Amino acid sequence: MPPLVHENGNRVWTRKHLLGLEELFPWEIHHILDEAQRMLPNSKPGSSKLQTLVGRMVVNLFYEPSTRTRVSFAQAARRLGADVTDFSSSGSSVSKGESFIDTARNMEALGMDFAVVRHSVPGTPHLLTHHIKAGIINAGDGAHEHPTQALLDILTIRQRFQKLEGLSVGLVGDIAHSRVARSNIHGLLKMGARVIVCGPPTLIPAEVTQMGVEIGYSLDEILPELDVVNVLRIQFERQRVGLFPSIREYYRLFGMTAARMARAKKCLLLLAPGPINRGVELTPEVADGPNSAIFDQVANGLGVRMAILSLLAQARQVESQGSA
Amino acid sequence: MPPLVHENGNRVWTRKHLLGLEELFPWEIHHILDEAQRMLPNSKPGSSKLQTLVGRMVVNLFYEPSTRTRVSFAQAARRLGADVTDFSSSGSSVSKGESFIDTARNMEALGMDFAVVRHSVPGTPHLLTHHIKAGIINAGDGAHEHPTQALLDILTIRQRFQKLEGLSVGLVGDIAHSRVARSNIHGLLKMGARVIVCGPPTLIPAEVTQMGVEIGYSLDEILPELDVVNVLRIQFERQRVGLFPSIREYYRLFGMTAARMARAKKCLLLLAPGPINRGVELTPEVADGPNSAIFDQVANGLGVRMAILSLLAQARQVESQGSA
Amino acid sequence: MPPLVHENGNRVWTRKHLLGLEELFPWEIHHILDEAQRMLPNSKPGSSKLQTLVGRMVVNLFYEPSTRTRVSFAQAARRLGADVTDFSSSGSSVSKGESFIDTARNMEALGMDFAVVRHSVPGTPHLLTHHIKAGIINAGDGAHEHPTQALLDILTIRQRFQKLEGLSVGLVGDIAHSRVARSNIHGLLKMGARVIVCGPPTLIPAEVTQMGVEIGYSLDEILPELDVVNVLRIQFERQRVGLFPSIREYYRLFGMTAARMARAKKCLLLLAPGPINRGVELTPEVADGPNSAIFDQVANGLGVRMAILSLLAQARQVESQGSA
Repeated sequence: MPPLVHENGNRVWTRKHLLGLEELFPWEIHHILDEAQRMLPNSKPGSSKLQTLVGRMVVNLFYEPSTRTRVSFAQAARRLGADVTDFSSSGSSVSKGESFIDTARNMEALGMDFAVVRHSVPGTPHLLTHHIKAGIINAGDGAHEHPTQALLDILTIRQRFQKLEGLSVGLVGDIAHSRVARSNIHGLLKMGARVIVCGPPTLIPAEVTQMGVEIGYSLDEILPELDVVNVLRIQFERQRVGLFPSIREYYRLFGMTAARMARAKKCLLLLAPGPINRGVELTPEVADGPNSAIFDQVANGLGVRMAILSLLAQARQVESQGSA
Repeated sequence: MPPLVHENGNRVWTRKHLLGLEELFPWEIHHILDEAQRMLPNSKPGSSKLQTLVGRMVVNLFYEPSTRTRVSFAQAARRLGADVTDFSSSGSSVSKGESFIDTARNMEALGMDFAVVRHSVPGTPHLLTHHIKAGIINAGDGAHEHPTQALLDILTIRQRFQKLEGLSVGLVGDIAHSRVARSNIHGLLKMGARVIVCGPPTLIPAEVTQMGVEIGYSLDEILPELDVVNVLRIQFERQRVGLFPSIREYYRLFGMTAARMARAKKCLLLLAPGPINRGVELTPEVADGPNSAIFDQVANGLGVRMAILSLLAQARQVESQGSA
Repeated sequence: MPPLVHENGNRVWTRKHLLGLEELFPWEIHHILDEAQRMLPNSKPGSSKLQTLVGRMVVNLFYEPSTRTRVSFAQAARRLGADVTDFSSSGSSVSKGESFIDTARNMEALGMDFAVVRHSVPGTPHLLTHHIKAGIINAGDGAHEHPTQALLDILTIRQRFQKLEGLSVGLVGDIAHSRVARSNIHGLLKMGARVIVCGPPTLIPAEVTQMGVEIGYSLDEILPELDVVNVLRIQFERQRVGLFPSIREYYRLFGMTAARMARAKKCLLLLAPGPINRGVELTPEVADGPNSAIFDQVANGLGVRMAILSLLAQARQVESQGSA
């Protein structure tokens, strides 16, 4: 099926899964952002619930720990009227040795309409689309993609600057192992932004230049040019394998401090996908300062996830009507 | 109170708990199956919720790990309009030493209308009926009974053959420790089916013949006669105590393979309560083949559980009106 | 903001958090008890849900294990029409090192209207009020306060005696480490009751007399005077540090036995916050005897928590209208 359809000259969303930003057309990303912006008022406390997914079942299939992403999807689904089933890999049939795909097929037999999937193995959500009919949303597959996180990052940028084209966005930290970085690179480049990755040389793969991004090994050098800096979380488990400098050294070279902020543009937008390590990737005063949008990001995540669920539901309804 | 009442010549469901199939009358099992079949359309994605249990609270009191049964009951309850509270034995007062019965009584004081109980000790759900007024549904008590699993197995058989009487059903595997086997034996015999149990001699108790079933030690010998084969899950923890042959040996003697399927009836119905160990009790191609109904079983489970909750709720309402 | 406002001569509830009973005015406690009593019919199985919190999100932020308190708040919130998100410290961003306050701020960005907080560090709920706007309810902070537990204890007493003033209430057990004891002392004294604490000398801090309570080291001596005895749970982890006598010795001196009950007033009301250790703080026959109200307490907890959520929601609405 083609990913886009013209109908009275308008493009129509036809995807039934959201697996990554790599395969999306630029207009599709714009479409998601517009829809998310439109959804935001209905994501706020006290607003009334939509009826889009009434009687539908959204399952969080999480095989890695998560707070905000899991709760964000659950809340987005409930705001659209859906029922939510939380499935995590402990205390369940996983301990009896059931395969991931069998678990998903069981959930589908129990009425699952959408599976929100987090798994340490890259490609797991894609694999699942060959085995079940439910809509699949990738909520993080290994170091591959985490599309809704990148979409909420990009929405937060667009809100601040009213545009994306021509902005200079720095991604700072462990680029090699970050699904957030990969999804941001795909999305931002498609939106016409300039992307500069920055971090310890051991954590910046050379191939990244083939994606179309620039490499900056010194944060202090690139910082004055940036409109946006997205501070990736240090995954402490990487330290053991000798890829990371010491925390102290990392903080000295890449930590976002007040002193460093003073050398940046006044209107620099500071993002962090979280959970943040205060005093490592950034100081508490920077995290809570006027340039930081880290809690706006979380709020925007709700809108993005409502938009995705809603768009996928529309595409599925159109198809089921078409085949009827 | 008598388990059945005649009213204008019709039998009326009066049970307020579902503890096992051993104590049910044949007409009661037929009644559950009919009601489950009637419920199925309302269990499907996108169907509207029923109002049967609005304002009611169903609590999953699970003291053993479970995915599908727990989610299935939760989803069945929600489809009937109920609120669901998931209680599992970790992260709770169990770690403070509270007794099971006190926990259940607390849940009742918090508004519990139905308790879905899974516990490793046989008879726990029965014990509970002496301490609380809420409706109790046995979701597995040790090696004793797991009535809703057997009911969904039997419903799946009835859907395929339009009858149960006279069918030859094989139960394969660890008969001695299987609550699924026990409940199936009680239910199938009451429905007029012929039941043959088959497995390693160490795992087939001699007393089983007193229940009215036949014993077949060779799957290859009995397979050609069978209309249905229900493949029980190997509980790997039994292996250590020397009751099981090696996995390899088990697979050779009892594994459902394509070669073995070729010697069975064309219309053989293959069931497995799951979670399945692919490549041990059955090969992936058999599990996903045309004879397999393992995901139909899961879907039927929803209907069965909606039927049970609904029937128990009716009996409770009748009684509270009667006593008013 | 003043904690009380006169409007046409009536006092109006204006608090937006419930942190403890120490800071409440006596009329506020009476007001909560009246509201809780009024809520009780809507907390019962089969009663219809209220619409007070429709579209609102209540988050259980529990950093210590809990069954009844967590489920009670969840059920109270649902009875008022709210959505509930259960957050516990395992399987979440806590394992990634996120701070408690960042977690709460994230939840607020996800739409949290009320946070029900349990934490081992005294003052955590108070601290949180400086960082988020959501309503905070203290569900236990270290050995400091557990106000809703004390309120439900006091409600249970008022139901039985139709008054609180002049009653003699004994708190038995580990007074030093009990947040339940502290909240009860604050609440009962404000209601005009006489409070006598009783337990092993190592577990009764001398300062307690400055709060206005009496100390009784012998339960047998004080028991005949008491109208109410509230039996605190033994926290077995204290035993190791040598503060507790042996379980056997504790039971001999402070255990509520039938023999001891025989020497008490006929109408003695026996409370226990639970989870109880049957055979240690009290015998099973006493726990289930005619003087015991331990499951009434649990039921009253629902009413108290509905009342608190409802009152805080009203105060918040009034303020948001005032500022509009």
